[in-house]
Amino acid sequence: MQYNTIEYTVKDLILTLSLNRPEQMNAFTVEMANELIHAFNRASDDDEVSAIVVTGNGRAFCAGMDLTREGNVFGLDESQQPSLDDMQQSDRLDGVSDTGGTVNLAIFECKKPVIAAINGAAVGVGATMLAAMDIRLASEKAKIGFVFEKIGITPEACSSWFLPRIVGISQALEWVYTGEIFDAETAKATGFVRSVHASDELLDAAYELAQKIANKSQVSITLARQMMQRLSAMPHPRDAHNIDSLAIFYASQTDGKEGVKSFLEKREPRFTSKSSTDMPSFYPWWDVK
Amino acid sequence: MQYNTIEYTVKDLILTLSLNRPEQMNAFTVEMANELIHAFNRASDDDEVSAIVVTGNGRAFCAGMDLTREGNVFGLDESQQPSLDDMQQSDRLDGVSDTGGTVNLAIFECKKPVIAAINGAAVGVGATMLAAMDIRLASEKAKIGFVFEKIGITPEACSSWFLPRIVGISQALEWVYTGEIFDAETAKATGFVRSVHASDELLDAAYELAQKIANKSQVSITLARQMMQRLSAMPHPRDAHNIDSLAIFYASQTDGKEGVKSFLEKREPRFTSKSSTDMPSFYPWWDVK
Amino acid sequence: MQYNTIEYTVKDLILTLSLNRPEQMNAFTVEMANELIHAFNRASDDDEVSAIVVTGNGRAFCAGMDLTREGNVFGLDESQQPSLDDMQQSDRLDGVSDTGGTVNLAIFECKKPVIAAINGAAVGVGATMLAAMDIRLASEKAKIGFVFEKIGITPEACSSWFLPRIVGISQALEWVYTGEIFDAETAKATGFVRSVHASDELLDAAYELAQKIANKSQVSITLARQMMQRLSAMPHPRDAHNIDSLAIFYASQTDGKEGVKSFLEKREPRFTSKSSTDMPSFYPWWDVK
Repeated sequence: MQYNTIEYTVKDLILTLSLNRPEQMNAFTVEMANELIHAFNRASDDDEVSAIVVTGNGRAFCAGMDLTREGNVFGLDESQQPSLDDMQQSDRLDGVSDTGGTVNLAIFECKKPVIAAINGAAVGVGATMLAAMDIRLASEKAKIGFVFEKIGITPEACSSWFLPRIVGISQALEWVYTGEIFDAETAKATGFVRSVHASDELLDAAYELAQKIANKSQVSITLARQMMQRLSAMPHPRDAHNIDSLAIFYASQTDGKEGVKSFLEKREPRFTSKSSTDMPSFYPWWDVK
Repeated sequence: MQYNTIEYTVKDLILTLSLNRPEQMNAFTVEMANELIHAFNRASDDDEVSAIVVTGNGRAFCAGMDLTREGNVFGLDESQQPSLDDMQQSDRLDGVSDTGGTVNLAIFECKKPVIAAINGAAVGVGATMLAAMDIRLASEKAKIGFVFEKIGITPEACSSWFLPRIVGISQALEWVYTGEIFDAETAKATGFVRSVHASDELLDAAYELAQKIANKSQVSITLARQMMQRLSAMPHPRDAHNIDSLAIFYASQTDGKEGVKSFLEKREPRFTSKSSTDMPSFYPWWDVK
Repeated sequence: MQYNTIEYTVKDLILTLSLNRPEQMNAFTVEMANELIHAFNRASDDDEVSAIVVTGNGRAFCAGMDLTREGNVFGLDESQQPSLDDMQQSDRLDGVSDTGGTVNLAIFECKKPVIAAINGAAVGVGATMLAAMDIRLASEKAKIGFVFEKIGITPEACSSWFLPRIVGISQALEWVYTGEIFDAETAKATGFVRSVHASDELLDAAYELAQKIANKSQVSITLARQMMQRLSAMPHPRDAHNIDSLAIFYASQTDGKEGVKSFLEKREPRFTSKSSTDMPSFYPWWDVK
């Protein structure tokens, strides 16, 4: 599989997914969206991938939607798109699907943890894409902005769901209302990124963290990712209990046996489960009535 | 419209809503509640208002419920109110509606962003009212307390919903359990306020922030407010995707056209949409099955 | 009632619940789980208990599951437990119930506020148990780790629900993915604990906080606990309004009368309500359709 707008590079169980339109500051296009969705789906069942680092080639992370090449960003051919008149007369519009949101839903569904290494400017969809990732590290040169309202549009890419659970509702609202661009230190102070690094140390720091994940049980990491992301949004801890009881029981019968054994024998564990083939049948539990 | 307990002053697209019982430390009464609800509803469709700053006249923000003039704070005439005996025998009590909660629900439904400028003491319903506002700034002289349990009653005004999503569940519980009053620096350290200001610079700071919101598209700001506040509480990011796809599509066909144009022409945009008349028909989407 | 693995000591309306297997670093067993569940249920209706402090005897808080004495940690006799084959063929497995989760659900249902005094190592179920408690204080010697993935298993005890609402989703994911152990200062910086204390001052600090809760109205504190923990997870503030309207009305007719009277008379209140017998009939409201 060859991509035009991204690079998919695997080494030591870590996938580096690089936005690769450096001349255009990695501006987001429909082609890039489709390639990202493909790549996250592919990584889900790629056993050589245990963790994912997303970064940008060149000096930007992603400069937002490429306004010069917008394309079909709403999931419908132009002829099928509702007219303004339609929108003012109907309370439902089938098929309109924001492209940034489809990427973020693919990240959400991904079986592998996703770490952002924010190497430079991340604005518009470049910023909301970050909010769907699990953990974010920033270069000192990072500049982040939810700039939508600056040009009269609303935030997108499910950021109303993702962003407040990272930084709280009030900080999320302020960034969205003002559309202002903020730096790495502000991102750190608010909890949007976990750490700030010199430009040339960013990727190493991201890989160091990714490696700590990649040496774990693939199946147990996949279960943990989906449990934390989904069950934290449920109305009652019993919703979590119903799932985590099954998950820890299943894990304890598989990679957990080696985990306990290696712990008692004071050696490194050798986990063998693969997320492609070894997920328990209750995964994905959310498809069950 | 003339108010007795508040002032409604509009300038440069910013509404200043001032609690105006300075001799009584702006203590909350049923009349004040009704006037606040009226004012937030009015501001929703007042095209001269793009952002709201709430503050208190005199040295307090709001000293809590006026215990000397309590009135009908539970939404029912005294003759209709359930007896203690009723409450111990029935699991449903129709019509009992806490007054602070009705104000906070009006803030929640408001189309315009709400910024609190906490000029002094904000206790009891004066504190829970703050939790429903989008963003809070405090004077160095601010004192805040969720003091309900000090006098043997429970928190109210939907604060169990609002407060934990600002400061996390553990800090919210500690403030509610102890009822202790805390200062502006503590409010800042916990994220309850975004910034602390000298007393005579508080309103200017609030207006500076409000101005950054007021120069945006009214319709896109209204959409963003309701998206962030509501969709962050949904069980799945797809719930956000369904709405934000429509919102950004609609915005891109209206004020977004001018936004992109002004951006490419490197000039300030001139947005024209009005939240009174130009909301898309899918707003409010929560009334749709 | 005599416990083998914990101590239940009441003084001045504060229950100290001490994990009491100091030779085994208070490692968690099925017996300890059952005794903890018994103790939290008992404290709910023990009128001599207005607040609970949980700590560990000896130098650890809880070193996690006792791998040497695991017992029936999944709620079923071994003969009834599903086989791996069962788990790969069925999407539902009745009766599998993680033991740590049953403890945390008992904490969640408890009528009395729960404060953790983390005196030393708290790892595995010793860490997830903390996440279900209301407020955490740590000794300088505390070491905390969600170490499950280190041994190839998943987090449990409803931690996917509890942990992100304390520290946010990204910090929760990082701790779970890496399984790394962190110290008291990190716990403080991330908001997992409210404060860090010298080892010999930890319990005094916990009691000082507990005393501020214990001198309040038992019924109003119980209502506040359940309101904050449950209603913050609801989709809309109106869900909170429906309950807190009833709660504050009920409280204002009972202990609130004494509370207002004592406030006006400038003296300490004498609250008399008991959570064992005086809860209003709408509690628990979540059992009502």
